[in-house]
Amino acid sequence: MENCLFCKIAAGEIPSNKAYEDETVLAFHDIAPQAPVHVLIIPKTHIQSADALTEANDALIAHMFAVARKLAEQLGVKESGYRLITNIGPDAGQSVPHLHLHLIGGKELSWNN
Amino acid sequence: MENCLFCKIAAGEIPSNKAYEDETVLAFHDIAPQAPVHVLIIPKTHIQSADALTEANDALIAHMFAVARKLAEQLGVKESGYRLITNIGPDAGQSVPHLHLHLIGGKELSWNN
Repeated sequence: MENCLFCKIAAGEIPSNKAYEDETVLAFHDIAPQAPVHVLIIPKTHIQSADALTEANDALIAHMFAVARKLAEQLGVKESGYRLITNIGPDAGQSVPHLHLHLIGGKELSWNN
Repeated sequence: MENCLFCKIAAGEIPSNKAYEDETVLAFHDIAPQAPVHVLIIPKTHIQSADALTEANDALIAHMFAVARKLAEQLGVKESGYRLITNIGPDAGQSVPHLHLHLIGGKELSWNN
């Protein structure tokens, strides 16, 4: 989608610090990390948010969770623990209108972070 | 699973304020809500966390997201926005070792809530 930051990152038009990539999904380190591990997992196709998913995307969201598990292991937080978050719309402060799953860990997270 | 709080809630042995139920998934209002809308979506089968999901659960996690979308609409936060969170393991403060997806909304959420 034109002018979508994450579409441009997925297309390689804007560089990112990649953590994982395959045909349908890209993961990259957040540029403003909230914890030692803070990766964003995005679909390469433009989907506005988790609220815009349909049954046609069932395999995609399941795959994003599989990628999260793989990354948690690779980044050393599988045993210590991690949080997966996705923000939808204005009240959640969704910063980029392209579905992204935050994977956060590497420190003790309070409910408030 | 014996002695699992959420298995007992799923089995109806411990009461909950239900928001949604079908054959595989139950959703109920959190007893200590962090926002006007705070629902927990759980699988009825015992799965320890999102890290314990396998490919065999792909349809389940996709269904949990579909239930989240349905609930967001029913609870009036589809347009205003909402956050989906799942905590895994000690660093994330996972409170009950049975997979649960928090659906939170109904107020402006900072990154910190």
